[in-house]
Amino acid sequence: MKWNKKDILGIKELSPDEIQFILDTADSFVEISTRDIKKVPTLRGKTIINFFVEASTRTRTSFEIAGKRLSADTVNISPSSSSLVKGETLLDTARNLEAMSSDIVVIRHHASGVPHMIAKHTRSSIINAGDGTHEHPTQALLDMMTIQSEKGSISGLKIAIVGDIFHSRVARSNILGMTKMGADVHVAGPATMLPPFVDQWGVSVHTHMDDAIRNADVIMMLRIQTERENQNIFPSLREYSRYYCLNSDKVKLARQDVMVMHPGPMNRGVEISSDVADGVHSVILKQVAYGIALRMALLYLLAGETK
Amino acid sequence: MKWNKKDILGIKELSPDEIQFILDTADSFVEISTRDIKKVPTLRGKTIINFFVEASTRTRTSFEIAGKRLSADTVNISPSSSSLVKGETLLDTARNLEAMSSDIVVIRHHASGVPHMIAKHTRSSIINAGDGTHEHPTQALLDMMTIQSEKGSISGLKIAIVGDIFHSRVARSNILGMTKMGADVHVAGPATMLPPFVDQWGVSVHTHMDDAIRNADVIMMLRIQTERENQNIFPSLREYSRYYCLNSDKVKLARQDVMVMHPGPMNRGVEISSDVADGVHSVILKQVAYGIALRMALLYLLAGETK
Amino acid sequence: MKWNKKDILGIKELSPDEIQFILDTADSFVEISTRDIKKVPTLRGKTIINFFVEASTRTRTSFEIAGKRLSADTVNISPSSSSLVKGETLLDTARNLEAMSSDIVVIRHHASGVPHMIAKHTRSSIINAGDGTHEHPTQALLDMMTIQSEKGSISGLKIAIVGDIFHSRVARSNILGMTKMGADVHVAGPATMLPPFVDQWGVSVHTHMDDAIRNADVIMMLRIQTERENQNIFPSLREYSRYYCLNSDKVKLARQDVMVMHPGPMNRGVEISSDVADGVHSVILKQVAYGIALRMALLYLLAGETK
Repeated sequence: MKWNKKDILGIKELSPDEIQFILDTADSFVEISTRDIKKVPTLRGKTIINFFVEASTRTRTSFEIAGKRLSADTVNISPSSSSLVKGETLLDTARNLEAMSSDIVVIRHHASGVPHMIAKHTRSSIINAGDGTHEHPTQALLDMMTIQSEKGSISGLKIAIVGDIFHSRVARSNILGMTKMGADVHVAGPATMLPPFVDQWGVSVHTHMDDAIRNADVIMMLRIQTERENQNIFPSLREYSRYYCLNSDKVKLARQDVMVMHPGPMNRGVEISSDVADGVHSVILKQVAYGIALRMALLYLLAGETK
Repeated sequence: MKWNKKDILGIKELSPDEIQFILDTADSFVEISTRDIKKVPTLRGKTIINFFVEASTRTRTSFEIAGKRLSADTVNISPSSSSLVKGETLLDTARNLEAMSSDIVVIRHHASGVPHMIAKHTRSSIINAGDGTHEHPTQALLDMMTIQSEKGSISGLKIAIVGDIFHSRVARSNILGMTKMGADVHVAGPATMLPPFVDQWGVSVHTHMDDAIRNADVIMMLRIQTERENQNIFPSLREYSRYYCLNSDKVKLARQDVMVMHPGPMNRGVEISSDVADGVHSVILKQVAYGIALRMALLYLLAGETK
Repeated sequence: MKWNKKDILGIKELSPDEIQFILDTADSFVEISTRDIKKVPTLRGKTIINFFVEASTRTRTSFEIAGKRLSADTVNISPSSSSLVKGETLLDTARNLEAMSSDIVVIRHHASGVPHMIAKHTRSSIINAGDGTHEHPTQALLDMMTIQSEKGSISGLKIAIVGDIFHSRVARSNILGMTKMGADVHVAGPATMLPPFVDQWGVSVHTHMDDAIRNADVIMMLRIQTERENQNIFPSLREYSRYYCLNSDKVKLARQDVMVMHPGPMNRGVEISSDVADGVHSVILKQVAYGIALRMALLYLLAGETK
């Protein structure tokens, strides 16, 4: 297969074959980060701009390290500095970055759809690093890469996603991807955290966590946004935690070889207990490591092959 | 010609020959950013510090990319971090950067004259990236480079600069440079935005925009600082826009091959209409692209040749 | 000697032999920053993360330049971005950085002991770049390097440290190091700025500055934290300055070849007069220059040799 997409905007836009191709390409980048000299010259002379209008330490750091290990020139634009381009439209900012001959712009924005809009109007490759409550495709790809690497394949697995499905772009991208790759996806959360028409997304919907995780091969816990505590979505963190925290008792409901995932940052004791987060089933830090390889693969596919 | 200035502090300090030499040198750097591998080893092992006490996304990004394409080590110091050096004089900060063996310090500061003061007391080369309402020489140089590249030469052209001439360091540097290079410069703006004694700057002064842009070869629109709306400089943005917005009707007053420029960021609908900003006369994004080449040339002249 | 420590957490953890070995190694890095091409490939492909939860322009810049001159990939995480990882424990953040295959994490934190805690739970090498009021080992090492380079040796010298000994991690680390290296250390400050039991630290304690600096070979002035003015530690800056400012009259009490040091940033006119800061005895800017070499040595010892 030859890669021919300009952008990575969402899992929605990717075919199963394309997802598989990305995951396979990413596999070949895992080894680089284990070397003594963790650097290859692949993207030397390419300019990658991390344009993060919404702040993010871990995703930005992951992209920056990925770019540097490929020898690209990486430039960060942070929320504080970008907010200073007052009065300028986002598209003008993006066109400016393009005029500086950027090869790839990695963009995170609090508004859904921004990366798509920018991608349509610039020749630079755009990678969506999270847009509003819409998609976070690179997170879903690294999650799928983790599952495939650890379980051999995604197809046929029972995967439970638990938490605030409604507001989570991680959930949305993963549901789109995992169902495309043939998984049996179950979601669970309080009714206030389930999107309308979620039953039409090709997943099984539960309000009881136990029903979702029973015999699951994979449990993915979502970060609860504690700042939503006063927004009438859930009564209290303690109440939420009582019903939707993954602790070691809950884990026993799943398959013995169940894999526990979390996109981070974790609220220990809220959506996941510490013994589970640090326990034998947890692959949470492996997700982070695979994230570097996955992002190296995407940067390579967008900047390395096509130009 | 051999370059022998330590610093780039203002257009005022540059002779016409020096300006021409910079523009010609910059020409030879344009091609690098069009390559597949946009990188040359020219400044390998040089340390360039972007010391931006006043925030700026685009100028800082432009300098950072320019430095990286020359293989220099670039370090950013941002307003938030630099404000933390409380109690320390600016000169002590600069001497510290010099003691770290920095080759070039690119400095932006809200106070006029700061780069000059620092340049006098350190051996590092200083580039003024904008000081107060004083000068912004690298913007003027990239503007002149754009004109020369697109029109062949600056001498003899009628150039109109429209907007808040009083508070604009871009206007000041461009007026100094363009008159030195033999252009016929016309400025226009409301009387409150014209500096005292502007008639002694070697330009024609107009309060009616039409008089300035009629038969112009180049129209440069200045960004209106919308935060000045309540400072009694102009009644309202709408009022300002009515008289000083460059729209397609106004453009017709100029020469058929007029070039429309703007230093960015644009306030679309205020000082420039969208159809003009995106129209056939606009070279606004070319200015950005030439900006990379121009800054590469300056970094090269200051760090590459002289040491 | 072969280096075998994973981390640099404090001077307390270092033996005199280890300190000497670091200083000698650092010596060999001084020359690199004087070259035309200030860069060696020693740490190519290593990932160094500057994780500064407490802001610091100069220390972060020093580490970043040191890393880049060794050709390492350096990534900055600043206070504003890191504060956004709300709800996540610091240890989880550190484990995440480790999962990204970072070789060294340089950490500054407002809480004492944080680097030690993180070092214990990660395999990455940790360098303490200042933790609370506890230690600032790289500052003390660069100070000792400065003394050794300029005076030949530390042993036997009379060294006076003057100012807020209680709240200064620089003082604490230097006292630990200098006494280990055989210096005769004298501290002076108002009683409110002397730590309890400071007499048990192996130093001579004075409340009169003159007693500390008389016949001293080295005087190290500490930065007074002017924001403490209303905390009942000292009556006023003027009052403090009257008794504890190092001016040229005071300098005459010391040995003729006395060396004046200050970790920066200086409050000119408060703890040190301008003529002394800029005078012939001052090595303040040399400290900054040695700081680059010292940090290069530490990065090299932690990442270069051991892996």
